[in-house]
Amino acid sequence: MESIPSASYSLTLRVEFPHRAGALGRILTAVGDAGGMVGAVDIVRIGHERSVRDITVNARDSEHGRHIVRSVEDLPEVRVIHVSDRTFLMHLGGKIEVRSKMQLRTRDDLSMAYTPGVARVCQAIAEDPESAFNLTIKRNTVAVVTDGTAVLGLGDIGPRAAMPVMEGKAMLFKEFANVDAFPVCLDAKETEEIIRTVRNIAPGFGGINLEDISAPRCFEIEERLKRELDIPVFHDDQHGTAVVVLAALINALKLVGKRMEDLKVVVNGLGAAGVACTKILLAAGVRNIIGCDRGGVVHGGRDDLNGSKRWYAENTNPEGITGTLSDALRGADLFLGLSVPGVLSVEDLKAMAEDPIVFAMANPVPEIMPELAHGHVRVMATGRSDYPNQINNVLCFPGIFRGALDSRAREITEEMKLAAAEAIAGVIPEESLVEDYIVPSVFDERVAPAVAEAVERAAAESGVARRVRKDEEREGYSGMPGVLH
Amino acid sequence: MESIPSASYSLTLRVEFPHRAGALGRILTAVGDAGGMVGAVDIVRIGHERSVRDITVNARDSEHGRHIVRSVEDLPEVRVIHVSDRTFLMHLGGKIEVRSKMQLRTRDDLSMAYTPGVARVCQAIAEDPESAFNLTIKRNTVAVVTDGTAVLGLGDIGPRAAMPVMEGKAMLFKEFANVDAFPVCLDAKETEEIIRTVRNIAPGFGGINLEDISAPRCFEIEERLKRELDIPVFHDDQHGTAVVVLAALINALKLVGKRMEDLKVVVNGLGAAGVACTKILLAAGVRNIIGCDRGGVVHGGRDDLNGSKRWYAENTNPEGITGTLSDALRGADLFLGLSVPGVLSVEDLKAMAEDPIVFAMANPVPEIMPELAHGHVRVMATGRSDYPNQINNVLCFPGIFRGALDSRAREITEEMKLAAAEAIAGVIPEESLVEDYIVPSVFDERVAPAVAEAVERAAAESGVARRVRKDEEREGYSGMPGVLH
Repeated sequence: MESIPSASYSLTLRVEFPHRAGALGRILTAVGDAGGMVGAVDIVRIGHERSVRDITVNARDSEHGRHIVRSVEDLPEVRVIHVSDRTFLMHLGGKIEVRSKMQLRTRDDLSMAYTPGVARVCQAIAEDPESAFNLTIKRNTVAVVTDGTAVLGLGDIGPRAAMPVMEGKAMLFKEFANVDAFPVCLDAKETEEIIRTVRNIAPGFGGINLEDISAPRCFEIEERLKRELDIPVFHDDQHGTAVVVLAALINALKLVGKRMEDLKVVVNGLGAAGVACTKILLAAGVRNIIGCDRGGVVHGGRDDLNGSKRWYAENTNPEGITGTLSDALRGADLFLGLSVPGVLSVEDLKAMAEDPIVFAMANPVPEIMPELAHGHVRVMATGRSDYPNQINNVLCFPGIFRGALDSRAREITEEMKLAAAEAIAGVIPEESLVEDYIVPSVFDERVAPAVAEAVERAAAESGVARRVRKDEEREGYSGMPGVLH
Repeated sequence: MESIPSASYSLTLRVEFPHRAGALGRILTAVGDAGGMVGAVDIVRIGHERSVRDITVNARDSEHGRHIVRSVEDLPEVRVIHVSDRTFLMHLGGKIEVRSKMQLRTRDDLSMAYTPGVARVCQAIAEDPESAFNLTIKRNTVAVVTDGTAVLGLGDIGPRAAMPVMEGKAMLFKEFANVDAFPVCLDAKETEEIIRTVRNIAPGFGGINLEDISAPRCFEIEERLKRELDIPVFHDDQHGTAVVVLAALINALKLVGKRMEDLKVVVNGLGAAGVACTKILLAAGVRNIIGCDRGGVVHGGRDDLNGSKRWYAENTNPEGITGTLSDALRGADLFLGLSVPGVLSVEDLKAMAEDPIVFAMANPVPEIMPELAHGHVRVMATGRSDYPNQINNVLCFPGIFRGALDSRAREITEEMKLAAAEAIAGVIPEESLVEDYIVPSVFDERVAPAVAEAVERAAAESGVARRVRKDEEREGYSGMPGVLH
């Protein structure tokens, strides 16, 4: 499946060519013939004989980008001066910075923000450690922690190479919910070592977002840190995905008129995200879930199951089904794919129950492409931005941490996650729900505030909030939606 | 010694009083009679009968502040509506934030800064780990690490209470040298645990600034981390102080016309800073240094010496002097105090060599007050901002890290520290040097760029630079002086 040109492979070609009618058109035609999508065309300089322009082109991938450049270079009288890769340019020097909230203009400023005035603030916190939430960045700051072992689809690329993703995550935290997030990329892979390190650096943070840590270590690391720390610890790859999947399912069920407790669900791919999705579905009332891995249906009779798969066998598949994915899918209401491209066939879809729902989230290529599934499913969602109903964690993590920080929650409870899913689903009014619109856009400004408020409320109800604001005290969302539009 | 009113104890009183001639004057007189210094007087509202004003007042300390408020409250027909403490107000929610360098306005932005585009950047770093210096915040980011055991003069107040100081330090890094610094306050006190934790979080940082970690653990922590990490590790309490002391001494010697190798130096107070000052003086060519602690002169014959004091006895005091501080001071050219208030007497000064130099840096009250020393010393410096010649680390650490980051130094060598001291001293032209002006102001915009350039050059000469720029390539100082003025 060939991907379409995207800004993520966006090049800017600085091109010199004869200043005469038709010359620019021939260049743009060459780009188009090579399959490139032309964006901005800027003037660098116009001379009497030669002109220089910057032409921005979206390509499919690096090889395609090189092909486009060669096509322009091959034109007579045209010279490509240089080619810059916009994605790399954007990353020069990193994507985030640390800023002072106020300037230090005078000696007076210095004597309040630093010595000697700061000493009184330190003493106040030493006497009342909870006041750190008022008097330091702890109130609004989250560590984005990874060991670089499961970064995107790239696998174990190490802590340095993981930084661009963690910086990107910090940007999303800031832009969508005004959370200050800072990347902490660990040169440590051993479970105990990671737990100790995160525990040791925790005092200055109001929350810990675990990211891209490979299974099964991620389970124990999260569980232990949740127990040992008094601030929220959230493994986004598990729970962020699970929350958005549940939100999508809540809205899909409104369309097909089914209830959680009556569903037959098949989950394919039982890594961290697959297990977390299963758990949240069970918490939401689903009873009949069947998990599949490369060995087929997971059931108690299999002797090749590791720790989390054992849990799976014990807590799902109430009818004791055995066999292949296709066997499991017969009569299923929902297929939940967190696995690999192309494992689902049209025949499988035909064997499902009436009004089948398919969430095919393998990245970048889904378990079945929407074009292929069209006509055989009632509701379909993927992880991609170029099809309807994108299941994207960014709908969850900014708002869920905003709510957790605002309530000074000790942890993120199951209730808070369920509340977040309901809030995401609730952004789309029932009368607007259609098959192609069960998940709000990642740019929908209503999502993060709605999630934050629901999570803050649920934190109070769960008893984990250290600050409970009444509705009328809540001076409004402390995030800053409106930056994105 | 009573301190003078300062902005670090600055209150704003919101006061309501009769709207008639003379009423405001009486309030300000009451503040003045109570010893408060009136700053801004702002109008909140003027009514027909009563007016409300905000009066900002500097006090000496908290008790003095309460006294001033009571003096105003006791006036007839005057009501103090509320009192706010400007230092605490400034700290609400913390003093720094994490910001995105570019906005995420569109799906295209998102696809370059985050998935899918970011994956190519990650892969580039995985293939060439050094490129992290180009493509991530590692290029410009320093961790300010403490365990909260020796914070200011407050001692072991713990990691949470240390946060306001570390945030303040991050502000100084940014404002003086455009370095992105982030506080890491550790819930760990054991030497090995601190070393492991810092080593584990190092990949995303370009440098480590250790801060307010108590002796003797700070020595081993710094030594080990220097050995184990490939980025600069700098314990500011030791080396920042030492660099600025050496800078001050370089200029003082120009005034008195003496040479390093001929000096007799007495160091009183042999904690982390005292030992570091001694080491840099030895590196700068001083031969005769005598150290004193509570037990008097440190010499090989004493049997109460711990590890760093043993080093001290073996490497200083070449004449094998014994006795008290006063004994050591006879004929000394320089007294360097990093100890406690008031240990130096006028008699001690009289016993020193001609043109005595005294750096009395006990905080907040020096070993001898400048008023008392006046007439008995040729050159005097303290740690205070309200006397001439303030020895302040902020003259060193922003510029030294700027230079280290710009050269991608693997460590901060002795040569880089010496270069930093020469650069600080060199900011004052010889013709401007006078006894009251041997140390530049912390607000002198020339300091950080001069230090950075000298340090970058020294890094190249020391062979620890991973990037060597020729003079003509150096497009100028990458800091942003001019924010302070």
